[in-house]
Formats: sequence, structure tokens, C-alpha cells
Amino acid sequence: MRSLCLFRSSLIGATVLLLSFVVNAQEVRHEIHFPDLPGYQTLKCDFHMHTVFSDGNVWPTVRVEEAWRQGLDAIAITDHLEYQPKSSDLPTNHNRPYELAKPAADACSLILIRGSEITRDTPPGHFNGIFLSDSRPLDTPEFFDAVKAANDQNAFVFWNHQGWKGEEKGRWMEVHTTLFEASMFQGMEVDNNNSYFPTAHRWCLEKGLTLLGNSDIHSPDLIVENRSDHHRTMTLVFAAERTAESIHEALRDRRTVVWGQGHLIGRQEHLEPLFDAAVSVTQPIVRMGKQVTLQIRNQCEAEIVLDRSAGNGPQSIKLSPCATTLVTFRTPDSETPLELHYTASNLLIAPETGLPVTLTTEASSTDL
Amino acid sequence: MRSLCLFRSSLIGATVLLLSFVVNAQEVRHEIHFPDLPGYQTLKCDFHMHTVFSDGNVWPTVRVEEAWRQGLDAIAITDHLEYQPKSSDLPTNHNRPYELAKPAADACSLILIRGSEITRDTPPGHFNGIFLSDSRPLDTPEFFDAVKAANDQNAFVFWNHQGWKGEEKGRWMEVHTTLFEASMFQGMEVDNNNSYFPTAHRWCLEKGLTLLGNSDIHSPDLIVENRSDHHRTMTLVFAAERTAESIHEALRDRRTVVWGQGHLIGRQEHLEPLFDAAVSVTQPIVRMGKQVTLQIRNQCEAEIVLDRSAGNGPQSIKLSPCATTLVTFRTPDSETPLELHYTASNLLIAPETGLPVTLTTEASSTDL
Amino acid sequence: MRSLCLFRSSLIGATVLLLSFVVNAQEVRHEIHFPDLPGYQTLKCDFHMHTVFSDGNVWPTVRVEEAWRQGLDAIAITDHLEYQPKSSDLPTNHNRPYELAKPAADACSLILIRGSEITRDTPPGHFNGIFLSDSRPLDTPEFFDAVKAANDQNAFVFWNHQGWKGEEKGRWMEVHTTLFEASMFQGMEVDNNNSYFPTAHRWCLEKGLTLLGNSDIHSPDLIVENRSDHHRTMTLVFAAERTAESIHEALRDRRTVVWGQGHLIGRQEHLEPLFDAAVSVTQPIVRMGKQVTLQIRNQCEAEIVLDRSAGNGPQSIKLSPCATTLVTFRTPDSETPLELHYTASNLLIAPETGLPVTLTTEASSTDL
Amino acid sequence: MRSLCLFRSSLIGATVLLLSFVVNAQEVRHEIHFPDLPGYQTLKCDFHMHTVFSDGNVWPTVRVEEAWRQGLDAIAITDHLEYQPKSSDLPTNHNRPYELAKPAADACSLILIRGSEITRDTPPGHFNGIFLSDSRPLDTPEFFDAVKAANDQNAFVFWNHQGWKGEEKGRWMEVHTTLFEASMFQGMEVDNNNSYFPTAHRWCLEKGLTLLGNSDIHSPDLIVENRSDHHRTMTLVFAAERTAESIHEALRDRRTVVWGQGHLIGRQEHLEPLFDAAVSVTQPIVRMGKQVTLQIRNQCEAEIVLDRSAGNGPQSIKLSPCATTLVTFRTPDSETPLELHYTASNLLIAPETGLPVTLTTEASSTDL
Repeated sequence: MRSLCLFRSSLIGATVLLLSFVVNAQEVRHEIHFPDLPGYQTLKCDFHMHTVFSDGNVWPTVRVEEAWRQGLDAIAITDHLEYQPKSSDLPTNHNRPYELAKPAADACSLILIRGSEITRDTPPGHFNGIFLSDSRPLDTPEFFDAVKAANDQNAFVFWNHQGWKGEEKGRWMEVHTTLFEASMFQGMEVDNNNSYFPTAHRWCLEKGLTLLGNSDIHSPDLIVENRSDHHRTMTLVFAAERTAESIHEALRDRRTVVWGQGHLIGRQEHLEPLFDAAVSVTQPIVRMGKQVTLQIRNQCEAEIVLDRSAGNGPQSIKLSPCATTLVTFRTPDSETPLELHYTASNLLIAPETGLPVTLTTEASSTDL
Repeated sequence: MRSLCLFRSSLIGATVLLLSFVVNAQEVRHEIHFPDLPGYQTLKCDFHMHTVFSDGNVWPTVRVEEAWRQGLDAIAITDHLEYQPKSSDLPTNHNRPYELAKPAADACSLILIRGSEITRDTPPGHFNGIFLSDSRPLDTPEFFDAVKAANDQNAFVFWNHQGWKGEEKGRWMEVHTTLFEASMFQGMEVDNNNSYFPTAHRWCLEKGLTLLGNSDIHSPDLIVENRSDHHRTMTLVFAAERTAESIHEALRDRRTVVWGQGHLIGRQEHLEPLFDAAVSVTQPIVRMGKQVTLQIRNQCEAEIVLDRSAGNGPQSIKLSPCATTLVTFRTPDSETPLELHYTASNLLIAPETGLPVTLTTEASSTDL
Repeated sequence: MRSLCLFRSSLIGATVLLLSFVVNAQEVRHEIHFPDLPGYQTLKCDFHMHTVFSDGNVWPTVRVEEAWRQGLDAIAITDHLEYQPKSSDLPTNHNRPYELAKPAADACSLILIRGSEITRDTPPGHFNGIFLSDSRPLDTPEFFDAVKAANDQNAFVFWNHQGWKGEEKGRWMEVHTTLFEASMFQGMEVDNNNSYFPTAHRWCLEKGLTLLGNSDIHSPDLIVENRSDHHRTMTLVFAAERTAESIHEALRDRRTVVWGQGHLIGRQEHLEPLFDAAVSVTQPIVRMGKQVTLQIRNQCEAEIVLDRSAGNGPQSIKLSPCATTLVTFRTPDSETPLELHYTASNLLIAPETGLPVTLTTEASSTDL
Repeated sequence: MRSLCLFRSSLIGATVLLLSFVVNAQEVRHEIHFPDLPGYQTLKCDFHMHTVFSDGNVWPTVRVEEAWRQGLDAIAITDHLEYQPKSSDLPTNHNRPYELAKPAADACSLILIRGSEITRDTPPGHFNGIFLSDSRPLDTPEFFDAVKAANDQNAFVFWNHQGWKGEEKGRWMEVHTTLFEASMFQGMEVDNNNSYFPTAHRWCLEKGLTLLGNSDIHSPDLIVENRSDHHRTMTLVFAAERTAESIHEALRDRRTVVWGQGHLIGRQEHLEPLFDAAVSVTQPIVRMGKQVTLQIRNQCEAEIVLDRSAGNGPQSIKLSPCATTLVTFRTPDSETPLELHYTASNLLIAPETGLPVTLTTEASSTDL
């Protein structure tokens, strides 16, 4: 009934209801807290999702609404070009999801990027092209031609969910070499929905490809607020500005960290400043003889798991998201400052390799 | 990507994926706890909702999935016949939402009832016909003819959200009298989404119409589990069996209670046994002189607010849903059994009129 | 068992376990988000609570642990002097709660203020003295002498829960006049636990007394994280520094706002800058003809309820805590900037009087 | 302040406030859902916890209140006899915790069992005696004498947290053999707070000892409602009646299952009927050719993780607590009934050994 309030006026031509959810209870946005890096804004992005215009189950505007509600900055709707299971009810129209979603995105200042999914048998698999100007030329019989059509539009192209049908089907073939050597794809999903692909991760590092993580949602996303233990898979993009162009530039420069299933996956050069910006030891620390009490603040949305790599400190510390964790331990030496050496084991700089970090205290302490 | 796992087989003709959500995280159903009444099952039903086939924003199967997940027993999808804002993308096809949703409903044993919304200017307003066999004959120029077409199919017809445009536009007109005297509509929504209509409530009682409460959802419903303080508006139907036919019979016999915004709205003959089945005093009670301690168990999903109407007991008691509440008070007399007289103020037997209830204790008590 | 790990070392004299909770799961602190005011830090304080040293049910260190966990900056433990129901098990020792709690407070950098509750029949009622140096002199037969003993230590003295036994017992008596005229009490609780006292509120404004709100907890506080709809009653103190001395100075200067049951109660001179620091309209706004879409960000932990007082805008807006709310409405005029006039009805500058606020947009807008 | 309402009357001798929490917000009890076994009630029990009368941090009544709130049926308060770190403030009085807690337990019908913890260096470690009549005789210099004193009162004695200081200190010594051969201890904790002890588990099975799991809480327990992913460690006792005597008889007959960290640990003879009573396949199942859709209901508070051990069915199924899970899979054969063979891997019948289970469907199915 509430939506009816608004369509009535549209019947008489005066208004179009851009954001259906404004009239419902879900008109609230919760920001996702990750600190900015020096010189860059940390934008929360999802570059892979579907609507009724391929095999998804929602109207394109729903993708805008849920992304806004969940605190995202930018999305790309990427319906399948070749797979159109609803076409007998809803005739194929590849550019239509973007056109329908754009006014809603503008109304709530969400960055909407035009995209499509090139959907071939695996192998070679599925590839997304984003920052397209027209999706239609990509719907062409030959796989290579489709990828080329995307590149002809200066799109950013990435290989989706490499290992989703097993390593055999996700293998690197000659066509991948051809495309890669022609710089015709620039990234890979290392995380899709709730699946992590270590092979894709390794290839990205070896070949200089951009790391991506996306939700690939088809049905409505029920998440109201992203939390460390239940969140949408997304790509953190370190962009000079909050614009589509800056995101495009950042993707080409590989300035991303993936947040998937509670893990942060990225290059050391990005994870290190992200950790430093998020985690701090509240000073001064408290000493009582050899017993030390630290308060460690974690200002990001991800829980961070620390395992001691050398020397002093508790064997393991969990830093709750957006909270302060109190830690007490005994040290053999009674001198301050302390240097505590840990591995952030859910901040992956390579498959099964956590980020090395050091927690440092100031020279002074409160002595009880 | 996960849905892709399944559509591949459909590409080769072997399988149709009926329930897209099975492959996602939301494959869990939480029952809604309301006790059965003597001789009847208490079925949780929603008879008013929309899809992309009118001004809704989801594919019809989504309505099945969310209803199953939320613990509903039966739904009717009731797209607008006359209002088709998406028809340039998705050609009008009034019977299609039911056809698309039916296999999914069968797969998860949800009762799906065919329905449509007759959508005219207010007044006379919007009317739902449910238990239809064919929606198309209702799409006819004259309002009266549309309602007649529904009745010709032996549909159950009800007036939606009477006061949603104000009491003036929601007034009872001659056409309503005509329809009512011909028994061509049988119920009214007293609650739609989060709006309660006291005038509709009063008319239902005066005229012997069935009380209905529905969600009228257009966008995805984000509720994962119905809770007392945040739940879907629904109609509790007291049916002889868990079948569409029994629901139809129960609606015609007016055996309903509406659950909306934490209120239970119904006829006294239904609210009384519902309260009795849900609420009990744990025996024996505990006495210490004139101080009495009671444990009151509420086995339904609604919080129940009790206000003392006479005699002993605390002035106000809130019975948490699906929980036991401990209450301590002093009585002037030291005799057991006790009779405590209250009004269940959120169980409405008429506008602003709560259900009178009595809490009775057994003769024996534990004396400290 | 876990605590046993630690007491063992204390048995051999090496360590005292200051913070029992460090070894449990609750070693996490969630900050309470209220912005600072120009020149002042906003400290979250609770100046009224009990332990087993009077009629409370927890050891003094528990009060420190729960306050730290919940994001408080400062507390005063204020056990009753005259009411000692556990004294047959636990001999009276008025200074002991502070002594026991102090090392724990130091270990986690919580500000602990020494206090006591002078507990007489109502009227005249209960008074807290805080910033004491020694609680014992306050345990003296005459009420006036007790209050004087507190003032002799330069304590800050306030009248607790004025109306808790009804307005008759909470009346202003000659002794209150005597004390007030001698400046021997300086504040009143306008909110205690979950009770608001409008008479106390009015007297504070009339007589220039400091507004206070406190939890008065006796049992363990189960709150893990303060939320708008379920939070500890507390006093926001606008202090020059995060020290006990600054808090004392701020209380004497009446720089407080009370957060109780979702309401913010304060003087207009404090609520106004608090609102301005917390609430902002995201710029630029979006216009589509006469339809305007605003995003309003609320960076504080309290939900803020706005009711339109004049002119344009929706009749009512709820600003969710620590979130952005999207609002759409139609304006008669198509010019920007807009000025929207509202009353923040749960920000009370006097009993039943909300804070008047204006939401202003920039001149430019995004036009669709 | 609210507690003050009640102590005032106690000052004049009329009333004692038994349950301090009745006047607060936490007067609500949520049942813990585990089905009864044939012939037995499933009682939720915790036999190990502390108060201010040893190294705990709450008054004994708090232990009653939190247990009632959390849905427990029976508790034993087991303060340390030899370790009395608060004795300079609170003189030692071993029987006092029980005496103080008993009236509160009676008022809310919680079963309170008198207990004490015999606390010696590890090894030999700590032992609880419960169902005592007098704690004082257990406070005696020799460890053996203390255990004997408990047995002289017909207590049930068990070894606490065997491995808490490492396997070396938790080793089986001559004194354990002496006690065991004299039947002077009858059980062991296999789970204490959040630590599981596989060695204790193995010994219990080898030697016919009762399996126990307890919280060993010292600080307030913040849990409001036990949930699968965050719950109090407890012992499910299968008792003929809801009485202390029946619990004692059940413990001696080893009729227990431990619920700790989401695991159910028990003998196969108890876990098997518990699984059968909790888990059922909703009939009829749905078939569409070789694709089968099942609804599996789990009526207990624990999530149950199923891993396929042979034949048909998905590789892994998670049964959410108190919910229905929908499962779709393909079978090679198209015949019904189906037998699905799984291991319930978090229902441990021995260390690292899950319970084998079979899900059986009826012969008929709904064919789409």
C-alpha cells in the first residue's frame, strides 16, 4: 500500500518513484568502517551481481537500494549476456538494467558502473566487463570477440570465480594466455560470494593482476548491516576521489583489498597501511612489575586475528571490530617501550600467508 | 556464482532450479509460534503482495522463498491488474506470477493461493480477490464487473487498506453497499503493512466481515525471523486442516486474528482461546506471607501487555514472547487460589478495547 | 577455572589479578559515540551505583569492568552509608569499595571517583556526595551533618531520584532550602535508571542546579554495548580534559546532558551544539523538480526524533543512531538552499519541550 | 533506586527481597530447548560456579538469578574451601553461599544443590563435591581426607578441568587410583567454561565415570539467552523427575550429555535418542525426477553438523537450532524411501568421533 501512495502521482505524470524503499522501513544506511589510506579514500565496491534481466530475482533498483543501505559506495550490475532464462517473460535488453538503476543511484549518490558478464562454458569461464558504454556489442558468438568488444570500450575486464567448478575446469588455458598477453583482462576474483580461490590469488600476485572480491548476488541480499562475522563480499578500492573515474584508475593500478568471509586479502603495500591506520595501542600502557596491560583499538569493520611470531606478548589476540581489546600478559624484561611481533593471520598477503605486524608502545607507562 | 552451479544443468535440459535460495545462506525456516485452537490449526498467512508483474520489485519465486523462510504457511500473490508500470519491459501477463511461483511453493510445501488486486481510484479503492482460477477476467473496465468476475470464480474478496488516503477517501459509498448486500466482498484489511485502520475494524465487527492483516510488500522483505518487535503483518487463520480449501472455509467463517505492529486484532471468540492456549501460570506459586511470586509463561510470538482491571496484582505486566516472566507483588489477603483480573491491552477485540482476561492460580502454594 | 590460572601466581605473592574479566570473553570495549563540543571532550559518566558493601550484589571491581566494557569514561561507586543489609556477613567499611576498585580502574584507565550515598527516609531523601576524600565522616546521625561533612571535603553533592516515592514524598522541604541556600547541594538526578523526574528537571532549570542521570545499578549490568533502544542511563559531561578534576569543574559549571531511556535531557546551550556536531545533511542534495531527496547523517548513539515545526519537509523524521537516513519529500518552491524547521522532540530542554533545530542545505543541488 | 523500593520494607521487618532482579529489566526466563528422552526429563544443570565467598565476584543470589534467566533447572554453587582471597573483607563461612541463595532459588523454583570445591595444587587438582549437607568438614589439611569427608556425606564427587594446566599436571596419579578404586569420585569435567579435555573424555569412557560440563563462572554471566553460537557450558541430565534427588540418581547412573562450545558430548546410548527426539524429516518429501527436496527440522538449541558417511545426499548439512533446514540434492536412483547416512560430527561419542545417524524418509513422496 505504501508504494501506492507514490505511484498514484506517477499515474498523472508528475513524479517517478526512484527509490521504492524510502517509503518502507529500510531507509537507513550504515557505513562500513575502514580507514582511508594516505592520499586515498577507501571505497567499498561490488562489481558483480544480477537482476531479473538475466538469472537474478530482483528488479535493478533493488541492487541500488541494498547497496546504499549496506554502506557501499559503488556497484556494477553485471547480468549474463548469453544466459537469459527469463527471456520468454522479459525480453532480452542488455542495457536496460543500467538504465533502470541509474536514476535511483543518482538519487542516493551511489556510483553505478555499467557492466555485463560474458558467460561461456568453463573453461574458459566467465568474465566481467565493467565501465562499458554499451553492453550489446559483447553479445557475440566468439568468446575472444566478446572480450575484445569490452576492451574496445576501454572496459576493465576480470575473470570471475576461477575455481568454482574445480581446479581442472578452472585451469589456465591458451586463450587466457592470449588475452593476458594482449592485456585484455586485468584482474581476477579471488573471492566470490563465500568462496576463496587460492589459485586465482597466486596468479594475481605472479602476473600483476588486480585482486577482486564480489558478492555475485542473484536473490535479494538480506544483510541490513555488514558485520565482521556476516558481511557481503566486497572490494575495498583506494581511490583518489569518490568517482567512477577514480575507481577505474585505482583498479588499473591494482589498489584493492578484498574483504571476504572475514578475511582481508591484498598486496602487502596496501594491507600494511590499512592495518596501521586501523589499529593502535592506547598510550600510555599500564605496568605492574612484569605484568603489562595494553588497550588495543581496532577502528575497522573486520575482526583481526593476531598470532605471536616472536618474543613477548600473548600467543594469540583477537581484535574485535570497531572496539578496543584489553590484553594482559607478563614480560621477562621490565623495560618500556615494548615491541610485540605478530602475524595478522586473516590479513592475507598471499595464500596461507598473513601480514607481519608490530605493535609498539611508547616509552612511558603508568606504573601501579 | 552459486546459482550458476545449478543453471548449468538446466542449460542441458535436465533440471529446473525451483528454489534459488537453497544454494544461498538463507535456506533456514523459523516457525512462528502461536498455539493451535481446539479443533483448528493456526496457520500464518499473508494474502497481499506484489512482484515485478505489477509494481513490485522481485520475481514471484522470491515471495515463496521469503514466506517459507519466515515461517508462513500460505500466501497469495496479488499483483495489480490495472496498474502495470513495468509493462514496457515486462509484458502484462496476469496469471504468470502464480504459474512461476507454484513449482517453488510445491517444492517447499507452502500453500500458494492465486490472487489479484483490483486497483481503482480511491474511492472506491482497492480490492483483492483470492482463490481465483483465472486472473484475466478481472481485468475489465467497470469496477463492479471486476468484483463480479472474482465472485463468479467463487473467490474470497476483501477491501484493502480502507483508510490509507484518509477517512474521506476511505468512506463507505453506495457501491460498497451494493457489493456488500450482494455478499460480493467478505472481508477488510484492518492492518496493512504498518498501518491500522480503526474504521475498517469497526465496520468488520458491525457487518460481520472477516478481519484481515497483510504485508502488501513490494520490495524484498528483509525479515529473517519474525519477532514481537519487528514482524511481518499477517493473518492467523484457524483452519481445520493445512490446505487451501480449509483456509478458504475459515476465511468465510471469519476465523481469523490479525498480527500487526505487535497487536493481535480479532473477535473475542478467537482471541480468548488463543490467550488461554498461550498463557499459563506455572504452579505452584510461591508465597512468603503476603508476598506472592508468580511465573507466567507466554508460549506465543507476541509480547502481551496486561493492565490490571480490578483487585490484586501489579498494575502492569509485560509477558515477553516465548518466555516466562517472573512477577512479585503483595496481596492484602493471604489466601490461595488467587484470581487476577487484567486487560490484555494489545489484544484488541474492538478499536481501543483490550481483551479481558483472568489469571488463576491453583489452591496450593509453596510457602517460604 | 580460568581465573584460577591467575590467582595461583598471586598465592606465591607475585601478581594480583586486577581485572578478572581479562581472562573471560568480555574483554572488549565498545565506545559510546557522542561528538565532542567545541573546547570540550564529551565524557560518559555514571555517578551512582552499588556493590556488596551496601545493598548491591557485585564486588567493586565488577563495577569497573562493566563500565570499561560499556564505553564509560568515569564512574563513582556510591554505596549507602546507613543501609548495610549485608553487614552480618561483610562488616561495614565505607572506604573499601573505592580502595578495592581503584587498582582495576587504573589498569584500564577508567576514572574512578570516590563517593557515598547519604540514605535517609524520603523526605528528605537520598543524596550522593562524590569527589570525597574519606567516606566515613558522612556516616553521622543528623542528615544535615552528613551533607555538611561532604561539603567540608569539597564534594559535589546531588539529590537522587527526587520523585521515586511519589511527588508528595519528593517535595521540596525546608531542609532543602537550607542546604540549597548554603550551596550545599549542586545538582539533582533528572533520570535514575529508567525513571524520569520532570519536577526535578524543572527545579534544576529554575534554581541553576546541574542535571544528572545515573544507573543506580545494584545487580550486574548485562549490557554489552550501549544502544539507542537499550542503554545505561548516564551523564554526558563536557570536560576540558579527561581527568577527575575536569569532570568536577564541569559538574560545578553545569555542563552536562543526561542520556536516559533514549532521551537527551540538557540545557539548550549544550544540546544545541551537541545536535549540530552530531547531525549533518550530506551535500549536495538531489532534486527532481519539486521532489527533494536528502541524506541526513547522525553521528551519535542516540536516535533523534524530529517533528516538523513549520514550512517544508516530512512531518516526522527519525534519525537512526550512527547511521544515515534518506528522506524524500515534495516542496512547493523549487529553490535551493532549503531551510527545514523541526523540533527534536526527544532532546528535552525543559519538561515536554524539545529542542528547536534547523536543517540547512547548500545552495547547489544535483538535479535529475 | 529501584531496589531501594523494596529494602525499605525490610528495614521495618516485614519483607525480605529475595530476588533483586525482579525489580529490574531482567525478570524474563528463556527456556533452553532440548527434548526429553523416553522416561526422562532433560534437565539443564551447572554444577560449578563461584561467589564472593571465595574468588567469585557476585553475591550468591546473583547465581540463582542468572541461572533462572538463562533457563537452567539446577545449579550448585561450589566456592573454594582453601582459597579465600576476600577473607580479610568477608570472613570465611563455607555454608553461607548456599544459605543465602536458597530462599531466592525457592522463590523461582530453581533446584539449588549444596557444593564446595576442594582446591589443591595441580596435581592432584580440584574436585567438586555436590549434594553435601555441610561444607565445613571438607576444609581439612589432607586432600584425601577432604574427598573422604564429601563421600561420608554421600556427595557426588568429580574431578574438575583435568587438563587446565597441561597434560603433565593433569596426569592420573596414584591418589586418583586410590580414590577411583574406592569409588570416591564418580565423574570428571570434560568441558569447563570454554575448554574441552579429550583425555578426561577418554578416561570417563574407559573407567565408567560420569561426563560433566560446567561454566565455572566467577564474574557475572552476561548471557541473556543461550544460543548455539554463544552459550553457557552445561550438563544435560536425564532425570526421572525434576528434583535434586533425581538429578543425584541420574549422575550416579551416568545419564548425562555435556553441551560445550556448540558440541554435545555424551555416551552413544544418550546421544542417539537425543538426536532422534530432536531431528525429523518433514514428510512427504518432494521429488522432481532425480532431484529430491527435504525439509529437516531440528528441535534443539544446538546446531547439528552432518557429514555424509556413505551413499546419497549432500556432502555436508548444517541443521540450524530450533529451525527447519531445506536441502536439495540429486540421487542416482529414483526410488523412495531414502536412507541417508551421516555422521553428526559435533555430537561426540568419543574424542574426535561423531555420532553415526541415518535420516529416513517415508515411502511416499510428492512428485512434481
